[in-house]
Amino acid sequence: MSVDAGVTGLRALFHPRSIALVGATDKSGWSRGTYDNLRSHGFGGDVYLVTHRGGRVHGARAYSRLGDIPGPVDLAYVMVPPQAVLPVLREGADLGIQAYVVLTAGFAEIGGDGVRREKEIAEFALSRGLSILGPNGNGYINATVGIMPYGLPIPVPLLRGPVGVVLQSGALASAVLTFTQARNVGISLLASMGNESVVSVADVVEHLVDDPATKAIALFLESVRQPEKFARVARRALRAGKPIVALKVGRSDHARRTAEAHTGALTGNDAVSDAVFRQLGVVRVRSLEDLIITAALLAQGPLPDGLRGPRLGVVTPSGGASEIIADRAQDEGLRLPAFAPETAAALAGILPAFATVANPLDVTGYVLIDRTLLGRALEIVAADPGVDTVVLLSELPRAEPADPDAIRAVYAATSGRVAASPRPVVVVSNTLTDVTAYGREFQAATGYPCVTGGIEHGMHAIGAAVRWSQARRDALARAAAGEQEPGSPASGPGGSRPSRALRAGPVARVPAQPAGVWAEDRAAALLAARGVPVVPTRTAASPAAAVHAAEVLGYPVVLKAVSPGAAHKSDIGAVRLALPDAAAVRAAFQDVRAAARRATADPARVAGTADGQPRIIVQPYRTGGIELIAGVVRDPAWGLVLAVGLGGVWVEALGDTALRVLPTSADEIGRALGELRGAAVLRGGHGTEPADLGRVADVIARIADLAIKLGGRLESLEVNPLYVHGPQVEALDALITWRAQAPAGVV
Amino acid sequence: MSVDAGVTGLRALFHPRSIALVGATDKSGWSRGTYDNLRSHGFGGDVYLVTHRGGRVHGARAYSRLGDIPGPVDLAYVMVPPQAVLPVLREGADLGIQAYVVLTAGFAEIGGDGVRREKEIAEFALSRGLSILGPNGNGYINATVGIMPYGLPIPVPLLRGPVGVVLQSGALASAVLTFTQARNVGISLLASMGNESVVSVADVVEHLVDDPATKAIALFLESVRQPEKFARVARRALRAGKPIVALKVGRSDHARRTAEAHTGALTGNDAVSDAVFRQLGVVRVRSLEDLIITAALLAQGPLPDGLRGPRLGVVTPSGGASEIIADRAQDEGLRLPAFAPETAAALAGILPAFATVANPLDVTGYVLIDRTLLGRALEIVAADPGVDTVVLLSELPRAEPADPDAIRAVYAATSGRVAASPRPVVVVSNTLTDVTAYGREFQAATGYPCVTGGIEHGMHAIGAAVRWSQARRDALARAAAGEQEPGSPASGPGGSRPSRALRAGPVARVPAQPAGVWAEDRAAALLAARGVPVVPTRTAASPAAAVHAAEVLGYPVVLKAVSPGAAHKSDIGAVRLALPDAAAVRAAFQDVRAAARRATADPARVAGTADGQPRIIVQPYRTGGIELIAGVVRDPAWGLVLAVGLGGVWVEALGDTALRVLPTSADEIGRALGELRGAAVLRGGHGTEPADLGRVADVIARIADLAIKLGGRLESLEVNPLYVHGPQVEALDALITWRAQAPAGVV
Repeated sequence: MSVDAGVTGLRALFHPRSIALVGATDKSGWSRGTYDNLRSHGFGGDVYLVTHRGGRVHGARAYSRLGDIPGPVDLAYVMVPPQAVLPVLREGADLGIQAYVVLTAGFAEIGGDGVRREKEIAEFALSRGLSILGPNGNGYINATVGIMPYGLPIPVPLLRGPVGVVLQSGALASAVLTFTQARNVGISLLASMGNESVVSVADVVEHLVDDPATKAIALFLESVRQPEKFARVARRALRAGKPIVALKVGRSDHARRTAEAHTGALTGNDAVSDAVFRQLGVVRVRSLEDLIITAALLAQGPLPDGLRGPRLGVVTPSGGASEIIADRAQDEGLRLPAFAPETAAALAGILPAFATVANPLDVTGYVLIDRTLLGRALEIVAADPGVDTVVLLSELPRAEPADPDAIRAVYAATSGRVAASPRPVVVVSNTLTDVTAYGREFQAATGYPCVTGGIEHGMHAIGAAVRWSQARRDALARAAAGEQEPGSPASGPGGSRPSRALRAGPVARVPAQPAGVWAEDRAAALLAARGVPVVPTRTAASPAAAVHAAEVLGYPVVLKAVSPGAAHKSDIGAVRLALPDAAAVRAAFQDVRAAARRATADPARVAGTADGQPRIIVQPYRTGGIELIAGVVRDPAWGLVLAVGLGGVWVEALGDTALRVLPTSADEIGRALGELRGAAVLRGGHGTEPADLGRVADVIARIADLAIKLGGRLESLEVNPLYVHGPQVEALDALITWRAQAPAGVV
Repeated sequence: MSVDAGVTGLRALFHPRSIALVGATDKSGWSRGTYDNLRSHGFGGDVYLVTHRGGRVHGARAYSRLGDIPGPVDLAYVMVPPQAVLPVLREGADLGIQAYVVLTAGFAEIGGDGVRREKEIAEFALSRGLSILGPNGNGYINATVGIMPYGLPIPVPLLRGPVGVVLQSGALASAVLTFTQARNVGISLLASMGNESVVSVADVVEHLVDDPATKAIALFLESVRQPEKFARVARRALRAGKPIVALKVGRSDHARRTAEAHTGALTGNDAVSDAVFRQLGVVRVRSLEDLIITAALLAQGPLPDGLRGPRLGVVTPSGGASEIIADRAQDEGLRLPAFAPETAAALAGILPAFATVANPLDVTGYVLIDRTLLGRALEIVAADPGVDTVVLLSELPRAEPADPDAIRAVYAATSGRVAASPRPVVVVSNTLTDVTAYGREFQAATGYPCVTGGIEHGMHAIGAAVRWSQARRDALARAAAGEQEPGSPASGPGGSRPSRALRAGPVARVPAQPAGVWAEDRAAALLAARGVPVVPTRTAASPAAAVHAAEVLGYPVVLKAVSPGAAHKSDIGAVRLALPDAAAVRAAFQDVRAAARRATADPARVAGTADGQPRIIVQPYRTGGIELIAGVVRDPAWGLVLAVGLGGVWVEALGDTALRVLPTSADEIGRALGELRGAAVLRGGHGTEPADLGRVADVIARIADLAIKLGGRLESLEVNPLYVHGPQVEALDALITWRAQAPAGVV
């Protein structure tokens, strides 16, 4: 339903000079609240009230129609009943009003009539070039310029700052506002999206990427409604150095159900979301706390190019906190290198004799006697050449201390050291408690940096910042090398431009197919034709032919029935492994044929292909190596997704797979293999030969490439197992399934 | 170093009627702070200042010796230099003073002389029956009765309540006090342990188990210094229904190093700590936030017997929050069952038409119009028979609202519904923000329940409470059945009483052994003699003998060299698998013998046993089944620990093991197998036969039992692989290592 809302449209939406509240009434708390928010937060433009009765509302004059308003109107905030929304839009469009917030509920989220109504307003908006935020959304808060067409109470003081917030949930906006205030984190814009009938999350993110007041973007997502546009905007944000942090719900089955009830949106497969976000450099978090704390850290001044690497130098006044930090650093993949000799010597020179010089550093409780100790230690550690980022454990005072001037001087001195530090300094408090009103003033008075809220969330934020910085460097390197980005239209379910890969690929060579499953030998032949090594395979029509095949291939062998629909052959007893001799082959032939006949006689197991009767195939039995899986499936949101995993029967038991949205590169596939928990098995040891990982990645890249070239009707292409034994890489079994039609826009 | 401090001693320590501050001086902030804390928090008893100079200190009269004090002294708080501590103890003991807090540092934590000094005071304390908290500790805060011999500033107001806090870190005490205040969580006692030279964490926990003011216990641990006593006290706490929550650091290698520097304590293997805590019903958390939030939830009134089960009914005013809750519920193993039809009907009767009746429930933004909606929905959901616990998403006001009386009435009504609920109700806020001073008063005025801090930490706390409740039910059931508890002295490294298992076991049958490794065939023979099924094995002195053995056993076979010190035979090429015929066996015999000779020629690989020359053994080659590992090792803190895991070469790659401290039962071993990520493989499917799990657990129980019976010199006993194929369970390889001496106290 979404249409492309241009940046021009969003500028009008978020920077109106005058606003009309349409459907204003004293009876509605929303109406009163929105009016108050506009009036009390410094909006300098005109606010007009419109209600069909006219008269006075909220103590001010009300107009009975938009057309009666004497001056120009840039934004209409619409609170009329659902069936009256379209007439308001028509009137407004005729008057030249381009931007709307529609608070009214009763659209797609209720199904039936609501869906029709929403389609109507979206089509009307498209035809007239209108920007609409909503329907079923509370509006927005443009804190940068003090414009708040927003229906809910706004906690005071609203803090202006560098974090843009976009939420697919109205009720969470209040929680997020409260939390940002408690953290002393300022926001630039907060938008409550509603149903996204016209303006989507991707549109608002695009606006924020271009907004100079916004340094980082925090998203609460139920679903990504415009995957391709989102991917494009996210890639642009990454290149621009504007971090996106996302709390994407729907990790659980339950959340998926709830999200459907809530907005009518389909939540895609969660592991795919995870992989997509990672590929796009979007930092995914699981809590509202991490959402804001991580975005605030990434929005900080000292990190213009992100964090250089995972090596932390940690300065604390507490051994216990040092230990918690060390544990959390390991969780986050961060490192705590030993200090350089000159650092250690300098620290030894200032610390009391009973202190231990180590990273993380505990300057000890002596800091209570010499309050400058922490700051002086910070200065020394910040000079250590082996450290990428310095972490300082420090609390803001919560209330006026006994000696405020002395404490203020100590903090101001530390502020100076942080400003002068050759490396980014992240200040982290022990636990997540509010920055109190006193603390806020104290921080401003001493120029103290943003205090990240607690070790637990702070270390997560630092880990995320390091990962984001690496993703940005990788993306810039890829762009410099001219590599294609993942999530491009080559693999997308929608979109109109054919990609380079599609233009290059011989799609036409695959003949027209009915929907369904290809038998293994047919799939294997296609793979072999495209350069994927496949285990030698012979078809045998009789026991004698099977024995002959086995003798040519060499014992031990495997017998399988290949049969339309019998995707999981091992489930129906149609596979016999490790047959050592002719007698075993003859016996197995009878068994496998009988099992396959039983299976194909079961209509539930037969897909509707014209593939004919079961065939028996003979292959050498591979043993002593490692079995991988490499599969490509079409995700409804993100298109073709490659999954690699270890271990035949283990793959489902362990769920140990790594995903990549296509297209991807052999290098990236190598990194995916490295992410597997079982990656150590591939590297050899304990009697297994190390796999030739370059070769494995190359073969999987061919499989991925073939999947792209097979076109939009490909549902899935899976090699399982992909056998690896040292330098040998071989598909032992393959499965291709086709859908009846390609998704819209895919060739 | 620790000695057993009786409960009587700790009562004197924590409930003194008069206190002497020894080493008081105006020059020390610690001295001033401790004096102020005693004076300003309502301690009603006498406080005496002692300094060798006499005169006036902190504006009060100072005595030059303890003996000059006119009245009785129950507790001496000692701040003198390290070498003066023992003389103070001597003088005090002679005067009949039983209890001491020693603030002074410069003991075991600095090594060398400090270790000797600490030993002296511990021995003196033991000889005179003194209780000493410290040295190198800040003292304690007995909030229940207002006694605060504690050296650091105490945030105001200090909240009195049900959580006892024990910390192996002085500096973290301030962070914990601040956080408890921010959460509006009251404490009973906070003890800063210091070096635990006399009074240990286990002693203080024991005191808190008996303290009626304490309902839950929060621990910050670097190491458990008295494992057996800790285990005994933890079991008692579990039976008594007094939850223990522990933040145990040392999960990372770095933290282990830091903890050693900090206190001189060895941090044991972290996975073992994890298993021990789980077996003892100690809730382990990873952050200070979770420590306090979880302890506070478990200390709440509505949970006298814990939470009945994992089924939550969730009531919120927010779709977005519902989705986050659903995701987090899945992480925590909690369930969100569909509401009963009568619940759904009753909810439909009160909710607006556009609301969706589902669990988690979003009563929608209509709550802003009808403020009673949330409370009425809560009442309905609390009556649902399919729900164990109700979660209510709700915020306390942070500042006075526009209509305080109306809001107060709404909250008071909800308080009434919570009190009347037939199931426990846990109130959770959206994010972790402070309960403000206004919120604290509001909560007291409306009788509102404790608000758990944020969905992220709140769902963790609920999950922990459900797991703790289950652990408690299990422990009570085991006690009723007379089962032996894990961590009993049977397996402990210390302790003096022989256990039932040891009394029953034929330890003496194992002949005296030098330290080192037993060859596989010798270990296998011992296992077989104790009822563990072992793969048939034949020794072969020549190629011809090997072929004969293979023919008797049946092809394919395995050839191995068994050789002293060649523990990882596959690493030295001394194993040949899947030999199909006589020619292969003959060739393999030469290879294996040569490899074994090379290995035994390498002194680094040869342990000092009198085991003789390498031998070649022949075994049938097992294939098509599943390989497990079952190993018992001696942990320095907790004694014998059983590890079970899946998968031959996979075990190290995946780290997929489950641990149990011995003794344990076959039932418990079955549960451990069920915890493995790869457990699904054991249950069969995709061509693998389901394992007979009862049989597997029984065989592993025999291995565990044998390990116990082998006595204190056993270092490790490992079966790897333990082959499982349907009903067949067989040890394919075994390894036993011996240490030179049993740990102190172990037979």
